[in-house]
Amino acid sequence: MDERSLIFPAQEFRARIAALQAGMADQSLDALLLTAPADIFYTTGFLTRFWESPARPWFVVVPQAGDPVAVIPSIGADLMGRTWLHDIRTWDAPNPHDDGVSLLADALAQAVAPKGRIGLPMGLEAHLRMPLADFEALRARLAPRRFADATACMQRVREVKSEAEIDKIRAGCAIAARAFARVPEFAQAGRPLAHVFRDFQIALLSEGADWVSYVAGGAGPDGYGDVISPAGPAPLQRGDVLMLDTGAVKDGYFCDFDRNYAIGPASDTARRAHSTLWHATEDTLAALRPGILARDVHQLLSRGIEQRGMIPGGGRLGHGLGVTLTEWPSFTPLDETPLRAGMVLTLEPVCVTAEGRLMVHEENIVLRDTGPELLSPRAPEDLPEIRT
Amino acid sequence: MDERSLIFPAQEFRARIAALQAGMADQSLDALLLTAPADIFYTTGFLTRFWESPARPWFVVVPQAGDPVAVIPSIGADLMGRTWLHDIRTWDAPNPHDDGVSLLADALAQAVAPKGRIGLPMGLEAHLRMPLADFEALRARLAPRRFADATACMQRVREVKSEAEIDKIRAGCAIAARAFARVPEFAQAGRPLAHVFRDFQIALLSEGADWVSYVAGGAGPDGYGDVISPAGPAPLQRGDVLMLDTGAVKDGYFCDFDRNYAIGPASDTARRAHSTLWHATEDTLAALRPGILARDVHQLLSRGIEQRGMIPGGGRLGHGLGVTLTEWPSFTPLDETPLRAGMVLTLEPVCVTAEGRLMVHEENIVLRDTGPELLSPRAPEDLPEIRT
Repeated sequence: MDERSLIFPAQEFRARIAALQAGMADQSLDALLLTAPADIFYTTGFLTRFWESPARPWFVVVPQAGDPVAVIPSIGADLMGRTWLHDIRTWDAPNPHDDGVSLLADALAQAVAPKGRIGLPMGLEAHLRMPLADFEALRARLAPRRFADATACMQRVREVKSEAEIDKIRAGCAIAARAFARVPEFAQAGRPLAHVFRDFQIALLSEGADWVSYVAGGAGPDGYGDVISPAGPAPLQRGDVLMLDTGAVKDGYFCDFDRNYAIGPASDTARRAHSTLWHATEDTLAALRPGILARDVHQLLSRGIEQRGMIPGGGRLGHGLGVTLTEWPSFTPLDETPLRAGMVLTLEPVCVTAEGRLMVHEENIVLRDTGPELLSPRAPEDLPEIRT
Repeated sequence: MDERSLIFPAQEFRARIAALQAGMADQSLDALLLTAPADIFYTTGFLTRFWESPARPWFVVVPQAGDPVAVIPSIGADLMGRTWLHDIRTWDAPNPHDDGVSLLADALAQAVAPKGRIGLPMGLEAHLRMPLADFEALRARLAPRRFADATACMQRVREVKSEAEIDKIRAGCAIAARAFARVPEFAQAGRPLAHVFRDFQIALLSEGADWVSYVAGGAGPDGYGDVISPAGPAPLQRGDVLMLDTGAVKDGYFCDFDRNYAIGPASDTARRAHSTLWHATEDTLAALRPGILARDVHQLLSRGIEQRGMIPGGGRLGHGLGVTLTEWPSFTPLDETPLRAGMVLTLEPVCVTAEGRLMVHEENIVLRDTGPELLSPRAPEDLPEIRT
């Protein structure tokens, strides 16, 4: 094992597995079956962009005691061999006749007695990253063992970050902050938004991102129509508000925050909206404590906007952050997850500025016992102007 | 509808839906349920990097006749509203009590009679991108309607590209080729591989990629240990063979090819391996015709290496290419998919150069009635040297 390839020391992973196994015991789960990239990276340290290829399934089995077992395509043997895992079983994938199902069934049958229960994340925000037909064959083959939902088991462990994880996210936020500081260099009136998006990605890489998994944004007078669109060819115009939002990746961890810029002098509406978003965030930062619920944060952010005489936007006003761009909990009116110290979260209030137009502000924090600690350097109170 | 936001004219999507509906009729499927990003982009033109957030499921229902219905989180209404679809139904996601399940069940119940069959891709290379528990609730709710595997139905349509799609992939290949030509500018001996990966991504963006979804590679004497690892901090050394492989994205379409470079003068082994890979590819390009099977291509590439006295690597030696980094078919000994004109494919022979070391060569082609047309500009026969 080449320790230099590990993003964290093995002890970090052992602590995660111990926490998962405690959760499994509470739920009477005899093993966990993990198929999602984030869950596999979280438990093993196996980091690759090869997930972009949907061709092959990958599996990790966490037994009730002892270390995880990787059941993976042979193309990953070299890289998985450089993680802390020692039990790595491979097959030549893709195999249209048996794409790892027999090998996985054997591993699960070893770990779980015939009357046992296998935990699988199958709830909100969880995906089964293997063909459904193969899962159904696996389930039939393993009967009378039963599969049970392990979403909460994974989420309660993953949502509280270690200091080592927080350091990774803080490093990513610092990279993004340096890239945001360079936006005035390339976001001039007349430049197509697609070019601005490209230059922003280049700035993120130049400042130290390993890769850029997410960039979105928008531009328009007093705001933008949505926040998930790729850039089009239209040039930035004087009077636009430009927003850029990024999930840049450093050592497998995401940052996720945005910044707004006025292209030329800002309108009163745009300046007021930005200040409102900034102060609603300040109010919320002051009120955040472990024990409040995710839905309370939605209310704090919305109320902060209403109290300043503006209209809050709907939807999710922030979320967890870590090994994926977004994690639970969700700051919606419906999410009753209690916040806990060690959670890394985004605060993302939305303000409606005109019919079909909005502005969004976003910061990243880690919640401490005493309140939030900012991971993204705080945005300026006043909407910054890019002089044209 | 703002036509300018469409990557293709609506007619392109209508032709795809007609082809899918013909396949559905053959399989007696009354509707298709699509949840995967690639399938949703393919049928609607909905292009976003927001898939990076696993929080919300997205659905498209293709009925046996008529246009598709989008059942999506409201955050996507604006962007989906700029595609060719007109029936767009939204809910406020994520909703822990009902995350679109009722809305989707209603849409499917409208499209499919109680005795009907709903097609869902559930086979090799297909993933269900919604929580499994929600799918099981949906299935129960829609009974006695049955779900049937629609993997082949989607694959037979998606695998044959239109000229408009081929143009997109060709444009992506040209971007990557320009970036590969710049590698000698930044891949000098002494530079950490992580910096080379970063500069390569910057070059891809500078040359016109919308974003870079995949970069992998490796470096070592006479070859590398695997082809899926992220870069480490180790510096390039004189005598290394450096390989860079990319899936850069232009208008939602991928290229996927690699290039090898000798850092300083190449060893005889490295030069011979490169020439062998190049000639094995030439032989295969000369032999490729519609009607041969995917497994035949594996044999052609392997034999071309053996005939030159070197050892072919195992695994998949190429694959389909399009709206994901890799698509079916797979050039393995087990894949019996017949090749057809219009397929865009990669040829990816592997040569073992030493214990635990290999070299990989890759080109992208479109198969025509008369044989292959290169989409990636052909690699040089001789391993290029980066002078140090």
